[in-house]
Amino acid sequence: MDFKIPPRVEGLRQDIGTFLEERAGDVERAVIKRGMANCLPELAELRGEVKARGWWCPQLPESHGGMGLSLSEFALVSEVIGRSLVGHYVFNCQAPDAGNMEILIEFGNERQQREFLAPVARGDARSCFSMTERDRPGSNPVWMETRAERDGDEFVINGQKWFTTAADGASFAIVMAITDPEAPPHRRASQIIVPCDTPGFRIVRNVPVVGHVGGDHDSHAEVAYEDCRVPVANLLGEQGAGFAIAQSRLGPGRIHHCMRWLGICARSFELLCRRAAERELAPGDPLGTRQIVQAWIAECRARIEAARWMVLHAAWKIEHEGAKAARVEVSMIKYFVADVLSEVIDRAIQVHGAAGLTDATPLASFYQGERAARIYDGPDEVHKMVVARQVLRQYGVDTRR
Amino acid sequence: MDFKIPPRVEGLRQDIGTFLEERAGDVERAVIKRGMANCLPELAELRGEVKARGWWCPQLPESHGGMGLSLSEFALVSEVIGRSLVGHYVFNCQAPDAGNMEILIEFGNERQQREFLAPVARGDARSCFSMTERDRPGSNPVWMETRAERDGDEFVINGQKWFTTAADGASFAIVMAITDPEAPPHRRASQIIVPCDTPGFRIVRNVPVVGHVGGDHDSHAEVAYEDCRVPVANLLGEQGAGFAIAQSRLGPGRIHHCMRWLGICARSFELLCRRAAERELAPGDPLGTRQIVQAWIAECRARIEAARWMVLHAAWKIEHEGAKAARVEVSMIKYFVADVLSEVIDRAIQVHGAAGLTDATPLASFYQGERAARIYDGPDEVHKMVVARQVLRQYGVDTRR
Amino acid sequence: MDFKIPPRVEGLRQDIGTFLEERAGDVERAVIKRGMANCLPELAELRGEVKARGWWCPQLPESHGGMGLSLSEFALVSEVIGRSLVGHYVFNCQAPDAGNMEILIEFGNERQQREFLAPVARGDARSCFSMTERDRPGSNPVWMETRAERDGDEFVINGQKWFTTAADGASFAIVMAITDPEAPPHRRASQIIVPCDTPGFRIVRNVPVVGHVGGDHDSHAEVAYEDCRVPVANLLGEQGAGFAIAQSRLGPGRIHHCMRWLGICARSFELLCRRAAERELAPGDPLGTRQIVQAWIAECRARIEAARWMVLHAAWKIEHEGAKAARVEVSMIKYFVADVLSEVIDRAIQVHGAAGLTDATPLASFYQGERAARIYDGPDEVHKMVVARQVLRQYGVDTRR
Amino acid sequence: MDFKIPPRVEGLRQDIGTFLEERAGDVERAVIKRGMANCLPELAELRGEVKARGWWCPQLPESHGGMGLSLSEFALVSEVIGRSLVGHYVFNCQAPDAGNMEILIEFGNERQQREFLAPVARGDARSCFSMTERDRPGSNPVWMETRAERDGDEFVINGQKWFTTAADGASFAIVMAITDPEAPPHRRASQIIVPCDTPGFRIVRNVPVVGHVGGDHDSHAEVAYEDCRVPVANLLGEQGAGFAIAQSRLGPGRIHHCMRWLGICARSFELLCRRAAERELAPGDPLGTRQIVQAWIAECRARIEAARWMVLHAAWKIEHEGAKAARVEVSMIKYFVADVLSEVIDRAIQVHGAAGLTDATPLASFYQGERAARIYDGPDEVHKMVVARQVLRQYGVDTRR
Repeated sequence: MDFKIPPRVEGLRQDIGTFLEERAGDVERAVIKRGMANCLPELAELRGEVKARGWWCPQLPESHGGMGLSLSEFALVSEVIGRSLVGHYVFNCQAPDAGNMEILIEFGNERQQREFLAPVARGDARSCFSMTERDRPGSNPVWMETRAERDGDEFVINGQKWFTTAADGASFAIVMAITDPEAPPHRRASQIIVPCDTPGFRIVRNVPVVGHVGGDHDSHAEVAYEDCRVPVANLLGEQGAGFAIAQSRLGPGRIHHCMRWLGICARSFELLCRRAAERELAPGDPLGTRQIVQAWIAECRARIEAARWMVLHAAWKIEHEGAKAARVEVSMIKYFVADVLSEVIDRAIQVHGAAGLTDATPLASFYQGERAARIYDGPDEVHKMVVARQVLRQYGVDTRR
Repeated sequence: MDFKIPPRVEGLRQDIGTFLEERAGDVERAVIKRGMANCLPELAELRGEVKARGWWCPQLPESHGGMGLSLSEFALVSEVIGRSLVGHYVFNCQAPDAGNMEILIEFGNERQQREFLAPVARGDARSCFSMTERDRPGSNPVWMETRAERDGDEFVINGQKWFTTAADGASFAIVMAITDPEAPPHRRASQIIVPCDTPGFRIVRNVPVVGHVGGDHDSHAEVAYEDCRVPVANLLGEQGAGFAIAQSRLGPGRIHHCMRWLGICARSFELLCRRAAERELAPGDPLGTRQIVQAWIAECRARIEAARWMVLHAAWKIEHEGAKAARVEVSMIKYFVADVLSEVIDRAIQVHGAAGLTDATPLASFYQGERAARIYDGPDEVHKMVVARQVLRQYGVDTRR
Repeated sequence: MDFKIPPRVEGLRQDIGTFLEERAGDVERAVIKRGMANCLPELAELRGEVKARGWWCPQLPESHGGMGLSLSEFALVSEVIGRSLVGHYVFNCQAPDAGNMEILIEFGNERQQREFLAPVARGDARSCFSMTERDRPGSNPVWMETRAERDGDEFVINGQKWFTTAADGASFAIVMAITDPEAPPHRRASQIIVPCDTPGFRIVRNVPVVGHVGGDHDSHAEVAYEDCRVPVANLLGEQGAGFAIAQSRLGPGRIHHCMRWLGICARSFELLCRRAAERELAPGDPLGTRQIVQAWIAECRARIEAARWMVLHAAWKIEHEGAKAARVEVSMIKYFVADVLSEVIDRAIQVHGAAGLTDATPLASFYQGERAARIYDGPDEVHKMVVARQVLRQYGVDTRR
Repeated sequence: MDFKIPPRVEGLRQDIGTFLEERAGDVERAVIKRGMANCLPELAELRGEVKARGWWCPQLPESHGGMGLSLSEFALVSEVIGRSLVGHYVFNCQAPDAGNMEILIEFGNERQQREFLAPVARGDARSCFSMTERDRPGSNPVWMETRAERDGDEFVINGQKWFTTAADGASFAIVMAITDPEAPPHRRASQIIVPCDTPGFRIVRNVPVVGHVGGDHDSHAEVAYEDCRVPVANLLGEQGAGFAIAQSRLGPGRIHHCMRWLGICARSFELLCRRAAERELAPGDPLGTRQIVQAWIAECRARIEAARWMVLHAAWKIEHEGAKAARVEVSMIKYFVADVLSEVIDRAIQVHGAAGLTDATPLASFYQGERAARIYDGPDEVHKMVVARQVLRQYGVDTRR
């Protein structure tokens, strides 16, 4: 056992941390006040600097223009990047592009990689992933309404999606649609690339999330597919493999999310402590002298630490034993870290009082944007069932209802 | 002991409940989607209907145009009104006007009542209460920067306030300012009426609360007082009585807040249950069959019930033994109910999944707007100290640090 | 609505409180140190004093030698009695005798009342209730192994029970046994009186509860029924009515338990506060100056208050609308109060440090004896399901799995 | 980073696990039913087997007859040993002997090691550590009453200790006593070896812990030192170094405790799962199909996992950076793991229902014996303050009150 962060990664973490602190603060404040869609030039400039420093796409192989970090190396870097509201975007490792790039690298053919992956990997385009439907529970991913029917060498797609993150301004979507309704449940859906200028692809609106409509990458669209025709050549992998492709992303994707969340935790915790140090209840009497605040600091510090080692272990297990062997770990970190995230943000806000709800810090943005952490990618409760069933199977219980 | 709601009040609750369900739904949805400031005509229409039915200002004495309900009667009615996002506004019992009207009735002289109280009580004007300062903790209400200096028969007010709720569109503010800096701490501040068109009264901006800037009554302004001159005749009560006046409102004000929160709890709980009944995880298999959801229902139901009796008892105690005797109760309901409120909203959102964060229900508005419940009016932690110190005093402990 | 405790009951509470404080302390300490079975003479003496003061059997009608208090009056008195470890026994309103007396009054015929009820009501004998079986879940009360087969004018009982509270030293048991195995599930069992000297009635052992074996009334026996023959005349009510009789006791029984628990809460809270006041961390610096302890005091105080009004309301509702109408309330108080009880005891122990685990206070006895509160009478989880199902039924959900 | 348990240690864990399962079950059951003091022969036999297999004193250097495991290696082994109630005793790594041996190795001179360490290391004698006083808070370790006054070449010790674990049957105590009352607080106390047959050393009684008086190693004595004279040569280390010696043990001692607790967690979790698998609510319908139980399984599994990596990291940090650098970690694991421990035991009991409170499993023993985990070695709250103060110091806050 060795808990030491490799010196190369530690150095990178330091450098990126310093860069974000020195260079990203103004842009973050601008994004909080004016919205991401109104700050694209500043963000583009930061992206340029990231490229210049050789940190672009830390999660991608070098052959695709990235840094070639391993999963656990990226996890450690992602934690630092996640401290800034704009971090992942600026390093081009933001969801859903990161996941889409991963899919295209693993399942895309040469043409698909050239036409769709390359521009995103360069930062010249963005993409979206269109799976969630309003009237179908995310917890039952094989129950889906959107259909892609074969018509000659085209798919004709019809359906309604929502929470298609970052569709606003994207150049293409990867859509999950039923292509084989008579197949066994897990073989019914396929993943198909749909350029966003295809007739019949329509963004109905950006759905407000806790009141925040957002725009550009920072948005979640309702998308209508209305007799939307794309060439069969846009199919990713085999027909019917949509669910399997989605599953294959889950392990690494979960690590990405969790380490970004831990970055938010680290940032929120730091804001909490700074406020405790600086806010005075009476002249010379800072909030941090109060035992209740101290107890929160101690509890948050411990829970973040615990969550962090869990996630790093899960990343390590995926690398060494594969995603399947790490299935329990990958589900556990989902609900454990999401819970820590909620609590740390909540405590940090409480220590800030009313200021914590305003635009004075990123805390309100975290509170608004990260409530979804306990919902997306399968609600926490679903992951608990996954873990319990795996555990109980060892005791001979079949827990399918 | 008798836990029966008086039939007259029960009837009123039923009628108001039906009215809100039938008539307020569309306006509420409009407010969620377009913002309150863009729905004033619809709201005015509803207000007209409320007046026509004789329900206007349920909390005010009949002599001031209200229904003349007692505190605990109003508490029960307020719970029903609070179920709708627009309820309190439509019945003209919304904060901060309700509190300001109460102050003006108790401490305002005849001219002040005629000029300032009457238009608000009629619904022709709105008001705001300007106490909180950004750089001074709300938990130490005697530490304040804003000054009102006497200059002849005028006060010259200078200072910076924020979270002056509903300043946007208000016709006057009641401002807390230091008039006697050398007096003992609790005798330093006074409450002064400042018409909003007074030169030197400036709304700097509406402060975003969890990203929501809002407008009109639904807003929280940063207000600058810059050599703002008002006649000394605008003083409320005696000079130096500002803190005492603020204190006098706390008991009834707390009951108002808590019962409104319980209205939000009731609404959220109903949305939770309806979603559990209607959302299917698979055809014919509603979410409500899941034990985790059932446990949440049972826990929320019990906690709401418990909170409700606590608040009704506190109201009863204020009525029968006075606000001072009920001090512990009035502090306890603050943190107990705010906690239940947070949890019920949170559970209701979780049961809705992603939809719970959108504009499909008022839940996201509750989540955005009511996080402040644990902060304003003294953070929960302050009220816990109040209770503990009162309790420990009986055991001979002096707990002032 | 009226939250005032009737003066007569308030006076009684004061008097009983004073009596227990002045007279029961030594006996309580003796019971903690030596065990109840070794303190019977002292307990008998206290019982004599209770009788002399006219407080005997507060829950029984005057016609049976009791005080004739109503359910909610007794609830209030029971809270005070519950403050002492020995209180309920000393007033002869302890489980399981109180429940058995209730059954005998409602379902016993004249002979049964004369032979079995009268001695217990006088305090000359004790009884036990023999329902729980080790190998059958209490959460499924219709699944039971013990059989009572008719043989002439006798029942022949065979089976194994445990957690037959207070069997040690009892003069008779009321046993639940299957008499009609082919009837619908809820009509299969009957309640039968079994004198403890009947051949075939055998106490296997007193089962240790958290290591405490106990003795006499303070014990929980494993009981074997081995061809145990009793006259058919010992049947309580109709054959097959066992489950219905058990159900009929649940409402009032739950109130009794919950108010006793609230007495334990009150006592533990008082011990907590006293320790906070008296324990010094450094000379002149009592524990109660620490904010964490203060927060616990405030939270416990509020939770106890909330629980208390819930239970009193439930008692009132049973009285005014019947046990059936109060079914949700009766289940809610079970898990809500049991949870508050666990937390208050836990906090009180923590404030005492190691001393809290010793025999220096009754806290360790509470911790040892009351963990079961979340289990007996149906585990909390079962009651949550009862509540959720009742609630969801209103939304059209059938939640039977 | 590498989370792999070294194969040698993994093998040892397997072997020891199998040994305990096959050989220790009967003894454990006997200890639960009859008490440790009545099972010494069986325990001695098991100890003999452990020696024969070469596993004796895994925590000790080989030069002192142990296995010579490193701290983190022993941590991993201790987790497995901790699964059995009798595990640590059987491997001779039980508190307080393990800590005393560590002190004697580090601070004892040759004679002290020969006379006192050697017999304990061989398993021929036991020892105790006498620090806690009833009337002085453990959270203020420099405030102590017991005095050791120099009289010629003897110390004359007077004072009263309690929670002197395992004094019953011990051959010597290491006692903390004030030798230099005028020195600075942290230099006042010394550690002195007191043979238990010294006149003036008197075991007043074994203090019941949650009703359990225990005996022999499984006991916590109140000890009176009454003019108890021991040679000055029995001083450990320098005079006045008592506090420093105690501190030096804290890091490794905390790791030992926490990993033992994690062993209890693992065992309790396993019992929970087995019960969920085997207990039927109706024929063929095991408890484990219930979602609430599944949620508990998932939550316990995750919390145990999180706690485990935290402790293993803390052990690693002590080894690589020293106990001082790991101070925050060593305090964090105290309260984090103790909290997980409480919850896992509690859930496991709840899943067992009434059986969980009896002697049918070790759960009731865990519930009885391990409540103290949140108290001894500094209550959780003290450790939270330690962590908060260390954190806040980095932000410039001096948090000493």
